[in-house]
Amino acid sequence: MDPKINEYLMKLAREDDKYILEMERTASEKNFPIVERLVGRLLFVLTKLKRPKLIVELGSGFGYSAYWFAKALQNGKIVLTDYRKENIQNAERLFLETGLIRKAVFRVGEAMDIAKEYKDIDILFIDIEKHQYLEAIQTLLPNLNRNALIIADNSLWYGKVAKNIRDRETLGIKKFNKYLFESQDFITMILPLRDGVLIAYKLS
Amino acid sequence: MDPKINEYLMKLAREDDKYILEMERTASEKNFPIVERLVGRLLFVLTKLKRPKLIVELGSGFGYSAYWFAKALQNGKIVLTDYRKENIQNAERLFLETGLIRKAVFRVGEAMDIAKEYKDIDILFIDIEKHQYLEAIQTLLPNLNRNALIIADNSLWYGKVAKNIRDRETLGIKKFNKYLFESQDFITMILPLRDGVLIAYKLS
Repeated sequence: MDPKINEYLMKLAREDDKYILEMERTASEKNFPIVERLVGRLLFVLTKLKRPKLIVELGSGFGYSAYWFAKALQNGKIVLTDYRKENIQNAERLFLETGLIRKAVFRVGEAMDIAKEYKDIDILFIDIEKHQYLEAIQTLLPNLNRNALIIADNSLWYGKVAKNIRDRETLGIKKFNKYLFESQDFITMILPLRDGVLIAYKLS
Repeated sequence: MDPKINEYLMKLAREDDKYILEMERTASEKNFPIVERLVGRLLFVLTKLKRPKLIVELGSGFGYSAYWFAKALQNGKIVLTDYRKENIQNAERLFLETGLIRKAVFRVGEAMDIAKEYKDIDILFIDIEKHQYLEAIQTLLPNLNRNALIIADNSLWYGKVAKNIRDRETLGIKKFNKYLFESQDFITMILPLRDGVLIAYKLS
């Protein structure tokens, strides 16, 4: 995105939620990757529209995206996963403080293995190692509910997907994008926010 | 959007629907502005998620956006408006051919005046003269249903909103964006697809 446009949008998207501001500060200080505020708002609106019972995140970090999901949840719950215990502990502390803890389940371990335990997933959020994206969706297809949403971060991978770059991560994202766009069972799009957010709506 | 990224996305978003292809051809030949395919998919997915009973379009042109909305509609209907009779006639012909006509109402005249006749609007789509955007939303606020979606095209206005440009159109869009982002009754975002698509979700 044009930096001027980004600046304009960030100025519009003023935020009062002190937990969001605190997480954004931490991410910036520690150079920890988060989906950022404009994507956070998108996750919030999609959750309001979808009214999911169950959200599963593959790769939650310290809980920034999960917090936006959880804020929008009415009666559902969200499963956070991360292979680093420290991340999940930080997320749990945040959810405890904000009063959202009853909506969340915190799991340390291999995201895909954990996700396989859950049936009828309404929103599957993917933010793990980029070469694992395709395997993740193929593995978890039977666990998706009717009309599920798949939301995947980094689907433009710094623009590398549009260039002739062939490292494992770029190829992984390209195969994942192609698979979902070509599938007759989904209508798929990529929103050019931050590093690209793929959204696939399951038609059946 | 980076032209390379746009090309990559357009290649992914292959289309088989002959009516969409025909409208895109017509738009390109006659240099008629349409929201284009990547935005069309977004309208489709938002409609699937929202399940609206009533969509009202302010400014339908020859029906490209309305066609995407109508394809995704289950039990609802869409009201098309345009001040040019020829546009509405073309839209009506399209909807007759595609079998979507029972979902649509075709109205020639001043979009805002027509829209005022409708209550409980679930999705309000805005694509009229840019200096009229703010007035349109202020006028139609009482006609919106609970948790309505506002979707507005051209919300980045060729990037002019991020520059110090002060013509009537740019100022109109800027005021509209500011109004919705600052309103406590909406959560608002702008997706940088094509010329910018504003989406505002009514929180009550």
